[in-house]
Amino acid sequence: MKAAIISIGNELLLGKTINSNMAWLGAELAKLGVPLDYAVTIKDDPIEILKALNDTWNKYDVVITTGGLGPTEDDLTKAVIADFFAKELYFDEEVWLHVQSLFTRRNMPTPVLNRSQAMVPEGFIPLTNDRGTAPGLFYQEGRKLFFALQGVPLEMKFIFETHIKEIIRATYPDAKPVFQKTIHTHGVSESRLAELFKLEELPEGVALAWLPQTGRVDMRFYGTDKRIIQEAVDAAVKAISPYLWGVDGETPAGALLRALEEHGYTISLAESCTGGWISKLLTDVPGASKCYLGGLTAYSNDLKLSALGVKENTLSDYGAVSAECAQEMVWGIKELTKSSHAISVTGIAGPDGGSTEKEIGTVYFGFIAREKHWYSKQLFIGDRDSIRFKAAEFAILELLKVHQGRNT
Amino acid sequence: MKAAIISIGNELLLGKTINSNMAWLGAELAKLGVPLDYAVTIKDDPIEILKALNDTWNKYDVVITTGGLGPTEDDLTKAVIADFFAKELYFDEEVWLHVQSLFTRRNMPTPVLNRSQAMVPEGFIPLTNDRGTAPGLFYQEGRKLFFALQGVPLEMKFIFETHIKEIIRATYPDAKPVFQKTIHTHGVSESRLAELFKLEELPEGVALAWLPQTGRVDMRFYGTDKRIIQEAVDAAVKAISPYLWGVDGETPAGALLRALEEHGYTISLAESCTGGWISKLLTDVPGASKCYLGGLTAYSNDLKLSALGVKENTLSDYGAVSAECAQEMVWGIKELTKSSHAISVTGIAGPDGGSTEKEIGTVYFGFIAREKHWYSKQLFIGDRDSIRFKAAEFAILELLKVHQGRNT
Repeated sequence: MKAAIISIGNELLLGKTINSNMAWLGAELAKLGVPLDYAVTIKDDPIEILKALNDTWNKYDVVITTGGLGPTEDDLTKAVIADFFAKELYFDEEVWLHVQSLFTRRNMPTPVLNRSQAMVPEGFIPLTNDRGTAPGLFYQEGRKLFFALQGVPLEMKFIFETHIKEIIRATYPDAKPVFQKTIHTHGVSESRLAELFKLEELPEGVALAWLPQTGRVDMRFYGTDKRIIQEAVDAAVKAISPYLWGVDGETPAGALLRALEEHGYTISLAESCTGGWISKLLTDVPGASKCYLGGLTAYSNDLKLSALGVKENTLSDYGAVSAECAQEMVWGIKELTKSSHAISVTGIAGPDGGSTEKEIGTVYFGFIAREKHWYSKQLFIGDRDSIRFKAAEFAILELLKVHQGRNT
Repeated sequence: MKAAIISIGNELLLGKTINSNMAWLGAELAKLGVPLDYAVTIKDDPIEILKALNDTWNKYDVVITTGGLGPTEDDLTKAVIADFFAKELYFDEEVWLHVQSLFTRRNMPTPVLNRSQAMVPEGFIPLTNDRGTAPGLFYQEGRKLFFALQGVPLEMKFIFETHIKEIIRATYPDAKPVFQKTIHTHGVSESRLAELFKLEELPEGVALAWLPQTGRVDMRFYGTDKRIIQEAVDAAVKAISPYLWGVDGETPAGALLRALEEHGYTISLAESCTGGWISKLLTDVPGASKCYLGGLTAYSNDLKLSALGVKENTLSDYGAVSAECAQEMVWGIKELTKSSHAISVTGIAGPDGGSTEKEIGTVYFGFIAREKHWYSKQLFIGDRDSIRFKAAEFAILELLKVHQGRNT
């Protein structure tokens, strides 16, 4: 069983707008045993849409379009879909009532423009959408399934979760889900990992995707036999253990918080150049409040002095971007919050502020893990965004490494 | 002139991994006047790769592949590319020296695996890559251009910026750049906007993309004539002004900081459920330190009491998620930082912590804008991530709205 996605939208091709729907749908379809095999992004153009439907409908078991159903989109997509399947469009009173109810709920009159959203190709089933006005559309020929969905992720996901999962499961009860297990490494290159864990050792029936990311490499094992995948993961974990910080989709922040929580530890943060990003990463994790007490983004020097107790001399003698300042910051936040663990970060993220002595990307970290305390200086390469992100992730992974007793 | 992108990688289809390369390349190609017309994502499979090359090479002026050049990828992509263009692969000594130098720089031996990265199809030009080991590849037939790039965004962008931009400009000196201008609204539906600004009013030669996002709607105008686009933007700005908070790619945080900076104002934050996200958004903006003094993520109640001066009675009588607490938090952070403006946020992001009285998604905000101060209660719908994001963006846009004197 195989699926294809057709993403429709000039804005996706013009750039700036990232197609996050594809990654989300890809993961869901794999879990349902109808993995995504092909994905194409095309313009809002009848000929392109027809061509894409032609290319996919006969070849794949499940075809999903996203985009082109908004109130301002002139029915173009729906008209082409109706045309391709040789159906007439009709005005669906029930859908229209639903559209109106959504506006009534918000005490707003329903714009006339939204009438177009109640047009449905004959033989298609509208899939109700509580997150927006346009319904999704579903059509079936034998075991072949076609779905037309919104481009807005919130609405697309709602319709997939509420309707499509069940339809796919009911149509393909024997589909074999694709299992994925990912192991996460840090501080090692992809090719070095491949020397440690040789592809020849990969058992039959398991595939491996290398996922190099900013500052770290993930290895994703996948296939339809859960047991064999687990064996491959176990072998890989053994081969690369000094570089391993987590398994299976866990974020660095999630792994750190889980590790701290196990021992009843608590953590606090004093951030400067990362500007709250580490705090954001920790609080992305549900239940973070169990060990994350809080953090201070001390962006101005005054706040470093008044709230963290950094000494004026330290700033004048060494500057705010220095090992000395990082250390005073980390003790300051530990004192303020009474946490057992603490991290501080101060650096130059750019684009301005670099000097020959301290170039852009220079970042100092202070760490406290109960009795242990240390600092680290790193030089990160990239633009403001990637320097900040690498610094935030380094801080989390460094504390985790020491906590895990790894020495690489 | 038109471009096509072929993204190669099982991991993109299996989901979880978002294809951000496409959005980036799409925007760059539009600026160069060779807009992206078609993008396809396929598996690491020789037949699929050949088919995609066949589908695109004769039809588009510029074809770019991403992915499949990593050290662990067995030369599959390169072999198919060489095959398609009927070229032999040879071992390029110069590329090999470059690969080795990157490892030497990091004091590491070069893994044998990386030798494959020095294989180049005859007649192709290797494009040096300072961000990683594999070079990009460039091939030209007449005015048709083919590029094979890395999947890792940092490397792909480096090669595009360093080499490809110039090659495209030199090959198509007359290409007309596509100009894009985006206006940003908040607190209004897409269809209501379309009633205010009618599509019929759009001048010839300008296209409009509606970009509904989490909590707000953007309108993007694009075309090759800068003047006409500006006219359309001016008309739209006039028609929808009560809902407009910014123009042209500016983030809400960027717009707020610019507005505050113009008056020499300063801002500070006291965050609870947003956990540093607002702080992260403000510090995403280069030069944020000019008016952002700092913020406290007071995740524990103790820290709300000790650092922000929230009263114990307030917590016991009203709870941490209350208008009273939000107001004490905002005065507390203003006091601590001596800022002219301040924001506080406290709410329930879920998945736990909701009650019948205060359901998940309930968020209280405190605001201070010099003499003015007020609070706001909002109910956001969605998962933890979208509640937190909507709360962070609401806080920024609410303060901006009041600063701009808009009343919607």
